[in-house]
Amino acid sequence: MQHWSRRFVMKSLGAAVLLAGHPAAIGLSRRAMPVGKQTATFIEHNDLPWALETRRGQFGFGPITPVSHFFVRNNLPMPPPSVTDEGDHWSFQVSGCAEAGSLTLADLKGMNVQTIANVVQCSGNGRAFFPHHPSGSQWGVGGAGCALWTGVRVADIFERFGGVVDAPAFLTATGGEQLPEGIARDAVVVERSVPIEKGLRDCLLVWEMNGAPLPAVHGGPLRLIVPGYFGVNNVKWVRQLGATGQQSTAKIQQSGYRLRAQGVTGGPQHPSMWRMPVKSWLNGPGADDQPVLAGSATLYGVAFSGERGISAVEVSSDAGDSWQVAKLVGPDLGPNAWRTFSLQTTLDTGIHRFVSRATDTEGAQQPEQTQDNQRGYGHNGWGDHGLTITAVKTLPERELIATAERASVVPATPVQTPPVLVLSDQALAGKAIFDNQAQPGCGVCHSLAASDARGAVGPNLDTLKPGLAQLRNAITQGVGAMPAYGGQLSPVEIDALAAYVFEASQ
Amino acid sequence: MQHWSRRFVMKSLGAAVLLAGHPAAIGLSRRAMPVGKQTATFIEHNDLPWALETRRGQFGFGPITPVSHFFVRNNLPMPPPSVTDEGDHWSFQVSGCAEAGSLTLADLKGMNVQTIANVVQCSGNGRAFFPHHPSGSQWGVGGAGCALWTGVRVADIFERFGGVVDAPAFLTATGGEQLPEGIARDAVVVERSVPIEKGLRDCLLVWEMNGAPLPAVHGGPLRLIVPGYFGVNNVKWVRQLGATGQQSTAKIQQSGYRLRAQGVTGGPQHPSMWRMPVKSWLNGPGADDQPVLAGSATLYGVAFSGERGISAVEVSSDAGDSWQVAKLVGPDLGPNAWRTFSLQTTLDTGIHRFVSRATDTEGAQQPEQTQDNQRGYGHNGWGDHGLTITAVKTLPERELIATAERASVVPATPVQTPPVLVLSDQALAGKAIFDNQAQPGCGVCHSLAASDARGAVGPNLDTLKPGLAQLRNAITQGVGAMPAYGGQLSPVEIDALAAYVFEASQ
Repeated sequence: MQHWSRRFVMKSLGAAVLLAGHPAAIGLSRRAMPVGKQTATFIEHNDLPWALETRRGQFGFGPITPVSHFFVRNNLPMPPPSVTDEGDHWSFQVSGCAEAGSLTLADLKGMNVQTIANVVQCSGNGRAFFPHHPSGSQWGVGGAGCALWTGVRVADIFERFGGVVDAPAFLTATGGEQLPEGIARDAVVVERSVPIEKGLRDCLLVWEMNGAPLPAVHGGPLRLIVPGYFGVNNVKWVRQLGATGQQSTAKIQQSGYRLRAQGVTGGPQHPSMWRMPVKSWLNGPGADDQPVLAGSATLYGVAFSGERGISAVEVSSDAGDSWQVAKLVGPDLGPNAWRTFSLQTTLDTGIHRFVSRATDTEGAQQPEQTQDNQRGYGHNGWGDHGLTITAVKTLPERELIATAERASVVPATPVQTPPVLVLSDQALAGKAIFDNQAQPGCGVCHSLAASDARGAVGPNLDTLKPGLAQLRNAITQGVGAMPAYGGQLSPVEIDALAAYVFEASQ
Repeated sequence: MQHWSRRFVMKSLGAAVLLAGHPAAIGLSRRAMPVGKQTATFIEHNDLPWALETRRGQFGFGPITPVSHFFVRNNLPMPPPSVTDEGDHWSFQVSGCAEAGSLTLADLKGMNVQTIANVVQCSGNGRAFFPHHPSGSQWGVGGAGCALWTGVRVADIFERFGGVVDAPAFLTATGGEQLPEGIARDAVVVERSVPIEKGLRDCLLVWEMNGAPLPAVHGGPLRLIVPGYFGVNNVKWVRQLGATGQQSTAKIQQSGYRLRAQGVTGGPQHPSMWRMPVKSWLNGPGADDQPVLAGSATLYGVAFSGERGISAVEVSSDAGDSWQVAKLVGPDLGPNAWRTFSLQTTLDTGIHRFVSRATDTEGAQQPEQTQDNQRGYGHNGWGDHGLTITAVKTLPERELIATAERASVVPATPVQTPPVLVLSDQALAGKAIFDNQAQPGCGVCHSLAASDARGAVGPNLDTLKPGLAQLRNAITQGVGAMPAYGGQLSPVEIDALAAYVFEASQ
C-alpha cells in the first residue's frame, strides 16, 4: 500500500482553499476497472467499494446484460483475491436445520442444479430523479441488469441438513467481506434476511453468471439470488446461510434499506426493500446524447416486475397524454427477467422525449411518480424515466477511432540471429515449386517464413506445421478454398513440395 | 509488416532437418487473441484466419455462451478495423427485388427489430472424432455456441425494396472480406446461398450479440444469421444480400461444404451443409482432465436440433447398453437454441465415461455413429462424444494462482512534489476531530489523503468530493453503514469536520 502526504499551511488571510500544483500531481490513485469491464461502459460512482452504473446507451436490445456491461454495487470492499480464488474449495455454514454443518462449492455442484433469468437492481436505482436529492450514489437507470444465474435451491441445501426446524420466519445470509476492526460487527456486516417462504420457494446459491464462473466483483465464487427482490438481498460471497427466527440484527437489515419518509430514521417498522415493483424505461435510440438519424426509428427499452413478469408496455411522446402499445420482443425468460419492448416511430429533426409505462401480469401499473423517501429508494415513476432523443438530418461524419482491436497484433520478437535451415535435396526442389512454379503461387494464400511468404487466405504454415500426409492430400485434392494441384503437378513434384513445407515449418 | 529471412544450407550428409537456434528465435509471431477473449479459454487451431475452439470445460451450465467463450471460425482474414469500425455507416447492397439499392446499419435500426436465440456450429465440429482423419482444423466439441442475436428479418429488408421478383430460389449473401489479388474471386469469396423459403421465413441480418454490439471477429458490424443452419451459412460482414435464381458460383458454395464420401470431390449434386441435425454432448463435470470429487455429481451438457428444439436427452454410463432420462434445465430459448440437460449420479473413485443421446421434437434421434465423409462434416454420433471423468477421493490442494484481478489495481502515479494544502481555521479544527476525536474514527472507514487515512468501508472521500450539505447530513444522521455522529459531536464540531473534509477533498 502506498503512502503519501501533503504539507499543511496555516491559513492566515482568510483566502479560499488553495491547492498548489496540478490536481494530477496530488497522487490520488484511481483503481483500474474490475476484470472484463471497460471504463467507457460505466458511470463510476465509487471505486472502493465499487459502484458502477451501466450507461443508458450501453444497454443492448437483447434481454440479457453481458457481464462486461453489468452494473456493480458493493456495500463493502470485496474480499481479497486469496479469498475469492477459493473456487470449489469455498465453504459456507448452514444453520437452523435438523443438523448444522457446512458445504463446499464442490458439494453444491453435485446437487440439483438450476438456471434462472433474474433482474438484479440496486434499491437506489433512479435516486438521481428524486427532487429532494437524497444522499448516496446518484443512480440513473443503469443500476440494474438481467442475467442467467446457475446454482442450487436454498430449499435443497436445507433439505440436505434434515430440513428447517423451530418454524423459522426468515432466510438469513451473511456475506464474506472482511470487516474493519474498531467497529461493531452489526454496524457494517452485510447480512440480510428475507421471509423464509420466499427463501424456500425460489432462492438460489449461484456460482455461474451468464454461462461463465461468477466473477469476484459480482460475488464469486458464491452468492445468493433472491429472484425478483432488490439487489441488497442478493448477498455476495456467502459464508453463512441460516433459517432464523428473527431478522438479522445487522444495521443493513434493521434500519438500512427501509422505505420511510424524508427525515425519518429507518427501523424495523418500515418496509424492507424486498420485492421490486413494476418498472420500465427506454434505453434507445439516442441515449447518452448520441444523435439519431431523422426518419424511421425503433424505440426500445426494458420492463420488469419482481416475481410477476410483464403483460404490456405503452409508450408516450406527449408526457402521458396519449399512449401507444409497444411490442414485447425476443424470448420470454421468465417472471423475474426483464423483457425487451420496442415501438417503431418516425422522428422529425429536433428534440423528442418519450416515456414508457409497464403493466405486470397481476395488473399493477407503473405510476407516474414515486413517493419521495429519505434514502431515494425504489424509484419506478415513468414521469422521470423518459428518454430524450435528438434527431438530425445526417449522421456526423464517421470518426475513425483507434480501437483496442487495432492494437491486438503483438509485434513479433525481433530476430536476433537468423537461424540456419538445412533442407533436404527433395525439399530444395519443392521450394522452387512453392516459390515459382505452382499456379496460383503458394505464397499468395499462405505464410511461410522460409519463402518470405505472407499470404493470409489459407493457414499460416509455420503455425500449422502440417504433416507430410496432410500436405500431400491437400496439394493433390485441395482443401476448402484451396484448389487441387493434382492436375498441374506430378506426383514427384507434389512429394517435393510437401517435403519442403514439412521441413521448413517444423 | 515485418520481413525476416533465413539462410539456407545445402544438405550434404542425408542428416535430418536441423534448425539452428532456439525455436523462439525464429521470429514467428503469434497474434494476440481477439478483443475480450483469453488464451486459456480456447484451443487455437489457427490464427490467420482465426479458428478458436472453446475448451470443453469452459462451457457453462447456462444456455447462453458468452462472447468471451464463443468459438471463432473465419474462412478468410477479417476486414481491417478501418472497415469493421464503420458502425452505423456500414452499408450493403440489396438485389433481386422490385427495386435495387442499398441500406445502412442506421437504416436497419429503424426497422422492425427482433431478438432470437440460435446455435452457431462449424460444419467441421467433431471432425477430430472421425477415424479417417479428414484434413482441416481438428475440432472436438467446442466449435459451437448459443447466443442471442438482434437484427432485422431479411423478409422485411426485401419488402422495403418492393419484395422479391422473378421467383428466386435462393437467398445469397456475400461477405466483406478483402480478397487477395491473383486468385479468381469465386475461388475464395465467402458467398453462400440458402433456399429462399428459409431466407424469407426466419433469417436475420444482426448487429448485436448477447446484448452488446456484434464484435468484429464475429462478423460485426453486420452478419447474417440462418437459424438452425451450420455456421458457414451465417455470412459475416455482409456487403450484398440478394434473392437469386441460382446458388452462388463461389467455390465455398458449389463444391465446398458438400457432404460426400471419402475421396470424392464435392459438387452441386452433394447435400450442402444447411440444417444442423440433432446433437448433444456432455460438458462436465471433469472435462479437460480436471479431477472431480467422488460421490454425488451432476452431469451436464447441451442438446440442440436446427429449427426443431429438443424433446428429450438420455445419458448412459455403459456405452449405450442402458439409458437414463436427463432433466432439461433452465429457460427454453426457442427451437434454434440449445438446451442444458443434467443428470445427478454417484461417482466411485476411478475413471468413468458417459455418453448422451438427444431426441428432437420431430422424433429424430442422435445416431451412435456418423457416416464418414470426405471433409469430416456434421459429426453428431453419440458414440464419439462421450465425456471421460476421473473421480478422486479428495480434491487437489487449492492452488493460489495469480489472477488478472490481482494485477488490476493501477499503481498510483508517484508524487513528484507534495502539493501544499491551505486549510481554513475551521477546517483545521475539523482535522483534529477527523483524526482523533470522532468514535469510531473517520479514517477507520474512509480514505482521505490529507489525514493519511486508508479506510475502505465507506467511500473514498478524495474521490467522492462531497458537498458541505451532504457532509453535514451524513455526519449528523449517518448514511447506510455509517453511524450518526449527531449525539457525540456538537453542531460547531460537525460544521468543522464537514469543512475539513470539504476543503481537503476538493
